[in-house]
Amino acid sequence: MTFERSGQRAADQLRAVRITRGYTIHAEGSVLIEFGNTKVLCTASVEEKVPPHKRGSGEGWVTAEYGMLPRSTHTRSDREAARGKQSGRTQEIQRLIGRSLRAVFDLKALGERTIQLDCDVIQADGGTRTAAITGAFVAAQDAVNGLLAAGKLAASPITAPVAAVSVGIVQGTPLLDLEYVEDVDCDTDMNVVMTGAGHYVEVQGTAEGVAFTRAEMDQLLALAEKGIGELVALQRQALSN
Amino acid sequence: MTFERSGQRAADQLRAVRITRGYTIHAEGSVLIEFGNTKVLCTASVEEKVPPHKRGSGEGWVTAEYGMLPRSTHTRSDREAARGKQSGRTQEIQRLIGRSLRAVFDLKALGERTIQLDCDVIQADGGTRTAAITGAFVAAQDAVNGLLAAGKLAASPITAPVAAVSVGIVQGTPLLDLEYVEDVDCDTDMNVVMTGAGHYVEVQGTAEGVAFTRAEMDQLLALAEKGIGELVALQRQALSN
Amino acid sequence: MTFERSGQRAADQLRAVRITRGYTIHAEGSVLIEFGNTKVLCTASVEEKVPPHKRGSGEGWVTAEYGMLPRSTHTRSDREAARGKQSGRTQEIQRLIGRSLRAVFDLKALGERTIQLDCDVIQADGGTRTAAITGAFVAAQDAVNGLLAAGKLAASPITAPVAAVSVGIVQGTPLLDLEYVEDVDCDTDMNVVMTGAGHYVEVQGTAEGVAFTRAEMDQLLALAEKGIGELVALQRQALSN
Amino acid sequence: MTFERSGQRAADQLRAVRITRGYTIHAEGSVLIEFGNTKVLCTASVEEKVPPHKRGSGEGWVTAEYGMLPRSTHTRSDREAARGKQSGRTQEIQRLIGRSLRAVFDLKALGERTIQLDCDVIQADGGTRTAAITGAFVAAQDAVNGLLAAGKLAASPITAPVAAVSVGIVQGTPLLDLEYVEDVDCDTDMNVVMTGAGHYVEVQGTAEGVAFTRAEMDQLLALAEKGIGELVALQRQALSN
Amino acid sequence: MTFERSGQRAADQLRAVRITRGYTIHAEGSVLIEFGNTKVLCTASVEEKVPPHKRGSGEGWVTAEYGMLPRSTHTRSDREAARGKQSGRTQEIQRLIGRSLRAVFDLKALGERTIQLDCDVIQADGGTRTAAITGAFVAAQDAVNGLLAAGKLAASPITAPVAAVSVGIVQGTPLLDLEYVEDVDCDTDMNVVMTGAGHYVEVQGTAEGVAFTRAEMDQLLALAEKGIGELVALQRQALSN
Amino acid sequence: MTFERSGQRAADQLRAVRITRGYTIHAEGSVLIEFGNTKVLCTASVEEKVPPHKRGSGEGWVTAEYGMLPRSTHTRSDREAARGKQSGRTQEIQRLIGRSLRAVFDLKALGERTIQLDCDVIQADGGTRTAAITGAFVAAQDAVNGLLAAGKLAASPITAPVAAVSVGIVQGTPLLDLEYVEDVDCDTDMNVVMTGAGHYVEVQGTAEGVAFTRAEMDQLLALAEKGIGELVALQRQALSN
Repeated sequence: MTFERSGQRAADQLRAVRITRGYTIHAEGSVLIEFGNTKVLCTASVEEKVPPHKRGSGEGWVTAEYGMLPRSTHTRSDREAARGKQSGRTQEIQRLIGRSLRAVFDLKALGERTIQLDCDVIQADGGTRTAAITGAFVAAQDAVNGLLAAGKLAASPITAPVAAVSVGIVQGTPLLDLEYVEDVDCDTDMNVVMTGAGHYVEVQGTAEGVAFTRAEMDQLLALAEKGIGELVALQRQALSN
Repeated sequence: MTFERSGQRAADQLRAVRITRGYTIHAEGSVLIEFGNTKVLCTASVEEKVPPHKRGSGEGWVTAEYGMLPRSTHTRSDREAARGKQSGRTQEIQRLIGRSLRAVFDLKALGERTIQLDCDVIQADGGTRTAAITGAFVAAQDAVNGLLAAGKLAASPITAPVAAVSVGIVQGTPLLDLEYVEDVDCDTDMNVVMTGAGHYVEVQGTAEGVAFTRAEMDQLLALAEKGIGELVALQRQALSN
Repeated sequence: MTFERSGQRAADQLRAVRITRGYTIHAEGSVLIEFGNTKVLCTASVEEKVPPHKRGSGEGWVTAEYGMLPRSTHTRSDREAARGKQSGRTQEIQRLIGRSLRAVFDLKALGERTIQLDCDVIQADGGTRTAAITGAFVAAQDAVNGLLAAGKLAASPITAPVAAVSVGIVQGTPLLDLEYVEDVDCDTDMNVVMTGAGHYVEVQGTAEGVAFTRAEMDQLLALAEKGIGELVALQRQALSN
Repeated sequence: MTFERSGQRAADQLRAVRITRGYTIHAEGSVLIEFGNTKVLCTASVEEKVPPHKRGSGEGWVTAEYGMLPRSTHTRSDREAARGKQSGRTQEIQRLIGRSLRAVFDLKALGERTIQLDCDVIQADGGTRTAAITGAFVAAQDAVNGLLAAGKLAASPITAPVAAVSVGIVQGTPLLDLEYVEDVDCDTDMNVVMTGAGHYVEVQGTAEGVAFTRAEMDQLLALAEKGIGELVALQRQALSN
Repeated sequence: MTFERSGQRAADQLRAVRITRGYTIHAEGSVLIEFGNTKVLCTASVEEKVPPHKRGSGEGWVTAEYGMLPRSTHTRSDREAARGKQSGRTQEIQRLIGRSLRAVFDLKALGERTIQLDCDVIQADGGTRTAAITGAFVAAQDAVNGLLAAGKLAASPITAPVAAVSVGIVQGTPLLDLEYVEDVDCDTDMNVVMTGAGHYVEVQGTAEGVAFTRAEMDQLLALAEKGIGELVALQRQALSN
Repeated sequence: MTFERSGQRAADQLRAVRITRGYTIHAEGSVLIEFGNTKVLCTASVEEKVPPHKRGSGEGWVTAEYGMLPRSTHTRSDREAARGKQSGRTQEIQRLIGRSLRAVFDLKALGERTIQLDCDVIQADGGTRTAAITGAFVAAQDAVNGLLAAGKLAASPITAPVAAVSVGIVQGTPLLDLEYVEDVDCDTDMNVVMTGAGHYVEVQGTAEGVAFTRAEMDQLLALAEKGIGELVALQRQALSN
């Protein structure tokens, strides 16, 4: 018997994905990305300086920060600014977003400037980190387009699109793009980040309950590949508007 | 000669104000309030417990936290969670919001529960703290309505509406509801919080450049009174939908 | 029936105010100010450098910090240095003191140096922030006098005296210069900062219990104006010794 | 042409692994694990209490902390205790160790007690997190054996052995168990955690430079499976002494 | 040739010591102690509770905190509350004060209550920690006297007076009670804490420049014994007023 | 009746002391020092820069940090990096180690470079701070030898050996080199740091229970002198291998 999903979604089906560019006015790139009820605001800010470890290197930097609004979740979570530190989970996620975006940037071609990505969860319903990566790419592309239009860059430093999705095994059924109730109930949870060319940037699989087999991993990787293909198409479409 | 405002706004005119209830799905009250380009998400969370200084008192508590998304501003500001502390400005504002809302709550009638207000600035263009107070009231009212509907409260603990607006003197002209470019250029800046009955809850006036006279203060208070009257009407209208 | 004050003080009467210059030996300005039992040590330190946002601007800076000794209060309060952070209240007060003093300084005329004001409460009995502002002005004047005497400044960058007082409504009676027992019992509490010329620098009114009317505000502002006039005279007298 | 490894190590060969039990005297389990020049001290401490989220649940808890001695590395790294916070990397690693160990524990069978694992790197030469997991399992087993011997547990709550290894592609060659110089030079880096039964607990693959293909991932997973098989045998042997 | 001291003070002579009881009104004991230009306010607060490690033990606790006002020193020092932590020096000193006072308290006889000593330096000119110990004893005695008078204690838990002084070798001359200019110039610096019975509670000697001999230590200990004898007499006299 | 020590150790006898040089491979000096069951890893790192207060002075700097592995102790202590700050005890100890080593360094002769000593307790059984000083000297000597061998220094900046030991009075008996059970039971505890020439660098005596007499101090100083003489001989022997 297979697990029944909300809205009669098929096991290998993404939630409704919506990508809204220019969501706020100040940032060089500003994207609201929605995966069903998950809503993440991704902004890209261009700063004409680099962190210490890149100064004088001729290379740029791409980095990310992540946060959840306190009531983006079912029950209110503490505000990290008030607690005085970011949780381990937050740091793990923002490091993942940063690495994922850097994987498709030629830092030499970017020149000594920084693209700072801020991914803030407005509403959470599972898959916030993968939505953040997928939306941050579009915001970063908008910021790069601005630099190209302003003549600050001659050629794009972006080498490929990048997108991400979560997959998992719930009650024995491999599922694409987990929402919160599925995630909670999940035996194995995997976040996959891939380029538009179908290559892996990050694979993070975790056995929440029981360890998983190689056959299960293969099923999950196939689902992820399908989903990311669709997400890259949606990014492309959003950017062509 | 008087100062010319964007969009041919009159000196005593509010920006376009929009109040969207139910903006997010998890919070007991969730309101997006817009004053022109200023957008603040105000959520009200009900928690069935009170902070230590109220335990066993039979009274409830109403409190607020405030934050700005890093790229809600013209140039990116540091993320307070990453810096490890809230700025003095942030603390000042969230204490103001908390006091303003408590001023229209009968804490005894609320019972031993807390209404936690979170005001997060999505986009900033001046007047974020006054928009936050005005929106937080609507979110708090929605949370209270939920408690009444659920039979957890027999009567509303809210004693009056409360709203807030900024006023200031720019190049010699007293103006209602300052936007960012006006605020930067401002000699005197005043934030006024009033109840629906036209009484003062908070008055905070600051001479940014030159000290101001009693006559100027009177002009500003009159402008604020007019603006708050209109805001209370808009709150009422939003709540009646 | 009117509220009866300790020591048969009239409603519009200041407590005994004492200003002692040269209270400690190291600081460029060092003033112990007493409002009855409230005692605040205000020192002004001159530093021949400015914070980053003023470097190279040709302008100076005036800033303040505030603290309470742990047992300056009726029951001991935690030491902020041991807790590892300043409370929101502390930050609010030190920002108020800094703004109030800057309002009477011509920063260009000060040159690229900083006057750092430290206001430490030795004993608290209400009105510590207004005592701090009133005393800090005298300490700042002493520091400026030292710079003039040393030929480091050709003309004083101080444009006017500044002083502050609290006013409030207790059991229906408007009172000048609240002491602790009055403050605790207060419906409306207002801190007013004015220049020697009778202009406003800051007005911060808060309804502690019930919202206040315009008529009440007018009464409070009149009381404050009277008190600040007397305080400025006391500052002048202290400086002329 | 394939990459040449130090000490003529084959591409699919582990470094010399040494597991020393009882390395220190106070802990319930204390293991020094060496992978070549990488040396990690893993201690297991039994505490007869659980963290708040487990209180009254009848279940126990297994958790981990990780640290590097400042001069365990080629150049000295800052002491995290002196800097006042753990880095994102440290938190990521200690969360990984904790999840990996919990995956082989039946928390119900453990009862309401905590096994706290401390993994401190004495000397670093690549692969510290995977060595830590592999050593922490042995320390945890020793702690459990102590509980069994003392009659505090009737049956072991450990459901399987768990071990971990790093794999990566260096100059086009897939390698098992990377040492530091290989890790620095690596295009793709993967940490794999598996049970003794050959099932996956965690897979974390990262493209450091270029994205990797599915074929490359398959090669890496095969290498990891081989290495972990050998590590589990070494754990068993160490525990049988 | 011997070192010449300010004010023609002899090598074995204390500075003018002044002990003012009841310096502030709220604390159970409040003493301003002056050693020449060094002025430290020592307050003793009685709290009817004990820290966790003493709960249910039937024993009380005596502890101390120490701070310097930012401009108590020649050049302004950072405010520890603003920097967000106490320096190593501050912690060392407050631990020393706490141990010294506990040495003359019978914690059993004190009962389950805490005497919290706060030593805040108003003006510094060398010897602040030894002045703090000497003054804190008087404040503690006043707090105990209050408990006796109120019938909360039947007998005093204080077993002996305790006082402290600094001694050092400056330009080859052993000196009693160093002031700042002597301390800066000092080869060996020793802080000695003794009871009224002439027994040692703490001896902390440090070679600032060259290591010191046993003969030098003996000279310093003799000077300290003389000074502490005089200080204990001054404490007694102050307490008898 | 005298106190009976473990292993029939005489009152004036050191525990078995073992000094292992080259304990880890990366540091310029790396020493494991063992006093019986107390084991401290002391590394010396050479950095070709100095802290701000020494820049441009032509002088170098020697400084130390100290830490305990969480389970180096009988019951697990919190990890300071996780708690977010070093305890007062830790700071006190690392300041002591730093001062002790600087006492035997000619900072001018060292040139503008820093020797950073890290003392990490692997296993604790009393006397960790004195073991740390004794071991840190050997590590520092190895680092200096490296600088001499590399031609970066023409002559050694080390002016004398330095070593340290604890002494104390347990049940009336003066003992050399206290182990943990003795330390816990101790009336008076003294840590003594001396040079190879028999001069004092630091003396820190504390009455844990009852104040101690001059005669007792003399006994303790004699024991310490004996022990330090033996430790300096052991350092010399270790360095000659």
